[in-house]
Amino acid sequence: MGQTFAVGLDVGGTDVKAALVDDEGTIAFKTSRPTEPARGADAVLADMADLSQTVVAEVGVSKSSVVGVGIGAPGPLSPRRGIILKAANLPRFKNVPIRDEVSRLVGLPAVLANDGNAAAYGEFWVGAGRDVADMVMLTLGTGVGAGVIVEGRLLSGHFENAAELGHTVVQPGGLLCSCGQRGCLEQYASATNVARRVIDAIEAGAESSLSNTPGGVSAITSKHLVDAVSQGDPLAKQIWEDACRYLAIACLNAERSFNPAMIVLGGGMSAAGALLLDSVRRNRDQHRWSLMDDIAEIVLAQVGNDAGVIGAAGLMFADLRGD
Amino acid sequence: MGQTFAVGLDVGGTDVKAALVDDEGTIAFKTSRPTEPARGADAVLADMADLSQTVVAEVGVSKSSVVGVGIGAPGPLSPRRGIILKAANLPRFKNVPIRDEVSRLVGLPAVLANDGNAAAYGEFWVGAGRDVADMVMLTLGTGVGAGVIVEGRLLSGHFENAAELGHTVVQPGGLLCSCGQRGCLEQYASATNVARRVIDAIEAGAESSLSNTPGGVSAITSKHLVDAVSQGDPLAKQIWEDACRYLAIACLNAERSFNPAMIVLGGGMSAAGALLLDSVRRNRDQHRWSLMDDIAEIVLAQVGNDAGVIGAAGLMFADLRGD
Repeated sequence: MGQTFAVGLDVGGTDVKAALVDDEGTIAFKTSRPTEPARGADAVLADMADLSQTVVAEVGVSKSSVVGVGIGAPGPLSPRRGIILKAANLPRFKNVPIRDEVSRLVGLPAVLANDGNAAAYGEFWVGAGRDVADMVMLTLGTGVGAGVIVEGRLLSGHFENAAELGHTVVQPGGLLCSCGQRGCLEQYASATNVARRVIDAIEAGAESSLSNTPGGVSAITSKHLVDAVSQGDPLAKQIWEDACRYLAIACLNAERSFNPAMIVLGGGMSAAGALLLDSVRRNRDQHRWSLMDDIAEIVLAQVGNDAGVIGAAGLMFADLRGD
Repeated sequence: MGQTFAVGLDVGGTDVKAALVDDEGTIAFKTSRPTEPARGADAVLADMADLSQTVVAEVGVSKSSVVGVGIGAPGPLSPRRGIILKAANLPRFKNVPIRDEVSRLVGLPAVLANDGNAAAYGEFWVGAGRDVADMVMLTLGTGVGAGVIVEGRLLSGHFENAAELGHTVVQPGGLLCSCGQRGCLEQYASATNVARRVIDAIEAGAESSLSNTPGGVSAITSKHLVDAVSQGDPLAKQIWEDACRYLAIACLNAERSFNPAMIVLGGGMSAAGALLLDSVRRNRDQHRWSLMDDIAEIVLAQVGNDAGVIGAAGLMFADLRGD
């Protein structure tokens, strides 16, 4: 176990996850609690502080060995100012100074990062990207989160909202996204949206073994879809392949834009394993660039659901180093 | 005039441009010579060295006040190794150690950069981007070159070929690009390709005032197209609007990816001025992101054709500073 620790918090619409993480990226203890964002920001902030103190107490380390609290949260937010500007999944969080409030309540320094960025940093620090300096991660969950590591540091951008790759346009004039744009990657390749596309297709009359999903068609999830793909269901295969084709375009565009050593696919959809990876790679290779042979390796995430808390803690350590 | 100087070279398929540039980015003297790449790399390298010595001699400064030679050239290339890997416009340049050869011939240090990156650095140093630290530039010429400045430095990437935004896919399954991909931005928004699309449309039977272009339909350039757009030609307007729509998507994707303060449009097509800028801005605003109000300013390049030589010289100064 490392010498020093940081608390990592990952605030989502459903749960607040918390972990005490050592300076080598190993979780000493973790726990979580329902977010219940309808209670308002103050109640959630109090829970975040309480969870932070809980994970320190459970491990039994002295507070002096805990360097601070790293917080991953849905954006758009401002890491520099430590403020959540607004967040679709936390409707009552508008301009909330989450970093300074948690810091005050816990009595430790704190840093704030976009949740997609925190997860990317976790994979970079101790996961799939631990041996590279330039990495792009896509987290395929409710939405499509992302993070970009350039020369070992998170890319931030002038307005602190770089790497919103889920909202790059992959289909001009395509599906309307909740963000206001049309044709966003998120509409084609998030776990939520691939399930949505199956439901819409079946409700529009398409045949599929998924029509018999327990709980009804509206209960179909990306996990059901993946099972149906494995069993050869034609509709499921078509929608899955389509998602992978758009993911391949997103990988290609990330490659031309950032030219990373590695592109990491994580989030709920990455549970499909080779079914995801092989199809994205195959679709990417159909577009292969003739001008240069060196291409990014596309791999699956390794850290899983803990990437967010580990990455948030890692960003706290990085902040202390001045990175 | 500044105290020290750098030579800037911009090697294209048609011309080698050379300038002596002071440490404030002002050109003291510039000249150019036809590249004639069919002569082979050695002859072109000798010309590059000769032009370097010419611009120093013309200004009459001592060689000790010249810090080195910055070279912008078509890629893919390796700035770290100083080598052009291969270049569509310089067919006889394969794995040419251009940096060290020019350095040896001139007797000064040298640096090598992708031409799109060099032009972007020129605009960042003394042009449209001089007051920002995070900037994206698209150069709309024979192809679509690009460069991305992150926190005052060129984004390089693990394989040293970041910011190839002309080869990001903006139309899945779209027009075949010479790079091997389909739907690249370059196919929709380079000066060459918008002209090509007009020619193809007229040859396929579309009506347009451009049918009467002196020299025949095959002589149509983007400049003719812009004139026809100004005069209200419907075919010209449609193809121009289409190009601007794809440029807007590229701007949007650059914004989500890099989140710069500014996106600069340069190259031959930017001579269209407000006709380009207004249409790209209008198309971008139709996609406006609801999650955040802060957006990059889209502006025209200010340095024009000298951006490449100025930027190359600027990169030589930056290299000496350790940037």
